Amino acid sequence: MEAKVGIVMGSDSDLKVMKEAAEMLEFFGIKYELTIVSAHRTPKRLFDYAKNAKANGFNIIIAGAGGAAHLPGMIAAISTLPVIGVPVKTSTLSGVDSLYSIVQMPGGIPVSTVAINGAKNAGIMAAQIIGAFDDSIGQKVLRYKEGLEDSVEEKAVKMEQIGYEKYLEKM
Amino acid sequence: MEAKVGIVMGSDSDLKVMKEAAEMLEFFGIKYELTIVSAHRTPKRLFDYAKNAKANGFNIIIAGAGGAAHLPGMIAAISTLPVIGVPVKTSTLSGVDSLYSIVQMPGGIPVSTVAINGAKNAGIMAAQIIGAFDDSIGQKVLRYKEGLEDSVEEKAVKMEQIGYEKYLEKM
Amino acid sequence: MEAKVGIVMGSDSDLKVMKEAAEMLEFFGIKYELTIVSAHRTPKRLFDYAKNAKANGFNIIIAGAGGAAHLPGMIAAISTLPVIGVPVKTSTLSGVDSLYSIVQMPGGIPVSTVAINGAKNAGIMAAQIIGAFDDSIGQKVLRYKEGLEDSVEEKAVKMEQIGYEKYLEKM
Amino acid sequence: MEAKVGIVMGSDSDLKVMKEAAEMLEFFGIKYELTIVSAHRTPKRLFDYAKNAKANGFNIIIAGAGGAAHLPGMIAAISTLPVIGVPVKTSTLSGVDSLYSIVQMPGGIPVSTVAINGAKNAGIMAAQIIGAFDDSIGQKVLRYKEGLEDSVEEKAVKMEQIGYEKYLEKM
Amino acid sequence: MEAKVGIVMGSDSDLKVMKEAAEMLEFFGIKYELTIVSAHRTPKRLFDYAKNAKANGFNIIIAGAGGAAHLPGMIAAISTLPVIGVPVKTSTLSGVDSLYSIVQMPGGIPVSTVAINGAKNAGIMAAQIIGAFDDSIGQKVLRYKEGLEDSVEEKAVKMEQIGYEKYLEKM
Amino acid sequence: MEAKVGIVMGSDSDLKVMKEAAEMLEFFGIKYELTIVSAHRTPKRLFDYAKNAKANGFNIIIAGAGGAAHLPGMIAAISTLPVIGVPVKTSTLSGVDSLYSIVQMPGGIPVSTVAINGAKNAGIMAAQIIGAFDDSIGQKVLRYKEGLEDSVEEKAVKMEQIGYEKYLEKM
Amino acid sequence: MEAKVGIVMGSDSDLKVMKEAAEMLEFFGIKYELTIVSAHRTPKRLFDYAKNAKANGFNIIIAGAGGAAHLPGMIAAISTLPVIGVPVKTSTLSGVDSLYSIVQMPGGIPVSTVAINGAKNAGIMAAQIIGAFDDSIGQKVLRYKEGLEDSVEEKAVKMEQIGYEKYLEKM
Amino acid sequence: MEAKVGIVMGSDSDLKVMKEAAEMLEFFGIKYELTIVSAHRTPKRLFDYAKNAKANGFNIIIAGAGGAAHLPGMIAAISTLPVIGVPVKTSTLSGVDSLYSIVQMPGGIPVSTVAINGAKNAGIMAAQIIGAFDDSIGQKVLRYKEGLEDSVEEKAVKMEQIGYEKYLEKM
Repeated sequence: MEAKVGIVMGSDSDLKVMKEAAEMLEFFGIKYELTIVSAHRTPKRLFDYAKNAKANGFNIIIAGAGGAAHLPGMIAAISTLPVIGVPVKTSTLSGVDSLYSIVQMPGGIPVSTVAINGAKNAGIMAAQIIGAFDDSIGQKVLRYKEGLEDSVEEKAVKMEQIGYEKYLEKM
Repeated sequence: MEAKVGIVMGSDSDLKVMKEAAEMLEFFGIKYELTIVSAHRTPKRLFDYAKNAKANGFNIIIAGAGGAAHLPGMIAAISTLPVIGVPVKTSTLSGVDSLYSIVQMPGGIPVSTVAINGAKNAGIMAAQIIGAFDDSIGQKVLRYKEGLEDSVEEKAVKMEQIGYEKYLEKM
Repeated sequence: MEAKVGIVMGSDSDLKVMKEAAEMLEFFGIKYELTIVSAHRTPKRLFDYAKNAKANGFNIIIAGAGGAAHLPGMIAAISTLPVIGVPVKTSTLSGVDSLYSIVQMPGGIPVSTVAINGAKNAGIMAAQIIGAFDDSIGQKVLRYKEGLEDSVEEKAVKMEQIGYEKYLEKM
Repeated sequence: MEAKVGIVMGSDSDLKVMKEAAEMLEFFGIKYELTIVSAHRTPKRLFDYAKNAKANGFNIIIAGAGGAAHLPGMIAAISTLPVIGVPVKTSTLSGVDSLYSIVQMPGGIPVSTVAINGAKNAGIMAAQIIGAFDDSIGQKVLRYKEGLEDSVEEKAVKMEQIGYEKYLEKM
Repeated sequence: MEAKVGIVMGSDSDLKVMKEAAEMLEFFGIKYELTIVSAHRTPKRLFDYAKNAKANGFNIIIAGAGGAAHLPGMIAAISTLPVIGVPVKTSTLSGVDSLYSIVQMPGGIPVSTVAINGAKNAGIMAAQIIGAFDDSIGQKVLRYKEGLEDSVEEKAVKMEQIGYEKYLEKM
Repeated sequence: MEAKVGIVMGSDSDLKVMKEAAEMLEFFGIKYELTIVSAHRTPKRLFDYAKNAKANGFNIIIAGAGGAAHLPGMIAAISTLPVIGVPVKTSTLSGVDSLYSIVQMPGGIPVSTVAINGAKNAGIMAAQIIGAFDDSIGQKVLRYKEGLEDSVEEKAVKMEQIGYEKYLEKM
Repeated sequence: MEAKVGIVMGSDSDLKVMKEAAEMLEFFGIKYELTIVSAHRTPKRLFDYAKNAKANGFNIIIAGAGGAAHLPGMIAAISTLPVIGVPVKTSTLSGVDSLYSIVQMPGGIPVSTVAINGAKNAGIMAAQIIGAFDDSIGQKVLRYKEGLEDSVEEKAVKMEQIGYEKYLEKM
Repeated sequence: MEAKVGIVMGSDSDLKVMKEAAEMLEFFGIKYELTIVSAHRTPKRLFDYAKNAKANGFNIIIAGAGGAAHLPGMIAAISTLPVIGVPVKTSTLSGVDSLYSIVQMPGGIPVSTVAINGAKNAGIMAAQIIGAFDDSIGQKVLRYKEGLEDSVEEKAVKMEQIGYEKYLEKM
């Protein structure tokens, strides 16, 4: 059965960050559903979402939240699916609060945490997880990483050829 | 109707800290019930506890937790009762993680946060809240604070009289 | 007797943040008085304000301050009323200084601390405290929280219906 | 084909922390291999380990390291398998250095980071990932989480029955 | 008229740290009085102490406190005497809370802050201030600093002569 | 003999911050001289400046610096005059680096540290130090503080009279 | 044989920072080559670059990276050349993550770390290292430092002559 | 001419940390001299040491200090030799103060900073610097790094052979 990823965020103000997870899943041709679930404003919705996530066909949940970011940890508490947490940058503490709230989970209930505002990487991690069991996705991840490699090498060649001053001007 | 306080903690390892809240409530003659509710290990219990807290006669909830300390915030998300959060000190980040996870709640869902390991103050704050509406408790809080004042003043007199060197020896 | 909340701030430069506490109290139909009291520039005014707060009919004090934010703690030291502290964001340390100065109170003298710049939540917490003893306010808090829930759910439905790309465009 | 997990650590001084990952995998009946790979002291070994991890039958890599903890990120750079990073607590910076070095990966190369010293959770996360695709493991994770729930509830009943003072004495 | 220094601390638990200020003043032959004044537990005492400090013959106040350390700043708010603040190390935040609470004073109300637990230096700073206007104390400070210099130079000579291994053994 | 204050900064880029110290000294009618002395770029100048500061008639030195801010501490190492250190805000670490470098001086060599960017307070502290020994300056400081008090009280009256909404509009 | 420095950065987005290293080497007339090597996106390129750096005639490597900045440490792991690491400022954690990832290297594998965004200083440090063994470069470094000294002294004279107000206007 | 390294520390209390730099230099057969130079207690000694370091035959200075650790930066200000700074761990701020004071040097005056308490790595870095110009030392560094590699690989083989439980018992 085809894998499916759920993307949730605590508030639509997180959408600008979290859409990068959706874009990466689209890039890898992975099914996903994206919605808003607030641990604090819609606790029942959170509970239902997490409780039924597996039955609803999800294999992985990507959850982004900022500040006292309880969403990823609470989904992990209720569901047995792997949860990838995205700490969203905050205006006061730059996302250190989000990071600590998401990563410092107690023994028994892990959340896979990526970098502050790292929604793109959350999408890639979901693809890597699926790719570890599904070779067609695994091949796409491999090609994606080779593409990153090629892109850096092209830039390096260009910078060596035209010199860093000209390279800077063209940026 | 007599006020009642609920004291909950995420793990029995927090009991050494959280018992000070109970002791203060006993001191002020305030009814309380103390139990364990883990946001992460017993999410259904958390949900039921918070959902029914008001119906079960509680006026205030004191919740202590460490690390990605979701317990106070999740009770605040589900119940309309005031929640006093106690960030418990952690072995790796000294409770800064607990503090940020508890205090940095989003707009709409506040948690009244006290100092790291400040369970004693959580009990006193509960008494001050009740005392703001119930004069007999209000008087007890006043006498308690006067007692603190007297105790410091006695120590000051003693230190001035015998000198700090002798005072230190007797500590 | 009807409950009344005092809102104080250390400087009029904090008004842009602290007015959100007033707005929430107005929303809940709770009486309040708002003024400036500086712990550092007007210590006598601070002393008088806190000493007479109960006699002046206040049940709760909301105090906001930034930097070496002594205002909430000093009111808590002088009055037995519950004090809700709002750490105001600072230009150098982003409000971590304000947060530590307000939340790390010693045993005996608690301050109920909310998030950095969390004046709105301070107003809601005051309403929750009053609502824990006054059912008409309690009902308003309940409806407010249900309103938050509805608002998130409407956004979620909309995002699911029109897709996140269109949703983003309309933000 | 049966899933297999690789556990690596930067130094044998991390073994006391990292063995908890192995213990959890044993608990869930998941195959694993554990060894030492130092990004800094054995870069060639790192390169070979990561390059061949997939061909050697691994589906997931758990990598623990402390300080300038490059091991998880470098395996993630070389392999397309999902890498779970464990920031090991350090004597000077308590593992904040390890956490930042592991979690703050650039776009394209994610590491799934767990709490400081959270090797146990790394093992559970590996089980959750495998369980998302293999129902027999998924069922074991479910029972494990139910066991956590039961254990907390038993403690709660006991604490309510005998009171917190007696409970404390028996701890 | 001979200068006199007031040393105050928020709690007798700070005495082990604060006595070093007294010892330095004794060393320099400067008059001082040492007592306990708690901003939070004895606000009236604080007010009276600061209000009358100048009339009571003090020229400088040394004030030590930990956590939400309001004592130095509140004395500075009430008195026009220079206040030297000593941030006392705390068990949870190592004194960063104390440091921020003392040093981050608003415009108009400075506190001269020394290092965390730096009571010895507070005593020396008081001597330097007095010595800037009173040459006999100024000479003593000069000799004290020359003594520090001599002591380091003697140790350096010894270490160079016997080698660091032997030096270490004798420490 | 009339007191004189030296104001030094590590770079002319600090002048925008440090000029506030000069302005306060002018306000109090205290003599001062302001110049640039870089601990790192002009170590000989630093040495000469500090060595001769007393002989040149200075009673107090105000030194501002940012980053690895060695200037205040090195003047304190060479001179016996009281040094007031101003940690200048930095673009990368917001002045936490400057603060730690200035305040965490070792036993024997104190620096009186004020808030990050607190040059105004450094000027006031110098006036308070001089005023502790010279009553005409002491009286000026007292009137200045009374002026602060009056100014806050006027604003408070105005805010209470016209309401916070109108007050905000006029800001 | 003439010394040569390699300058590498993890991404062309670091070029605006890292070009200052190149500019300083040009200033001192030191040969260098500048290119892009990403530890995470081009691990093979990293391996080859570091492995062959000595054979390719480099004496020193300057490596800049941000976030989980593995580039300097991995070059130091593979090559025996001295590596100067430049922590690049990040948008979320201001470069504290980069700093910890670069400086906190384990025993055996040092990286010479300069300030956040301190690429200019990395270039100067390379010149100082070369100058410690090559007197012609050593002399240039000496003249450069004397130039810094002269420049500060000129500014100081100017500020003393025209006064700080006029100086500020002309900045 | 044979290279020589100077090792200095601010206090003999740093010797337990700093001796590891000496031990590594002995291991590599590099000449060194070790002594105490305090920036704060012996500023003249600091000035003379740094001024004459080159003339006294030193090529590299290793300087360790804690807290407001000015020693490495001040030597770098006075001498043109490369300075390797060792931030010594402090009891209050764990060496974050030392790290910031040493690494955050201004443009023009770099210090090569190693990890907190990283004196061993300072010694190795000195050897790497010398080895970049002197092949016999370069070869020793290479063999040292190969030794590290062999040692990790032997431990890895042993751990794989006897299993991690037995390995742990034997540690």
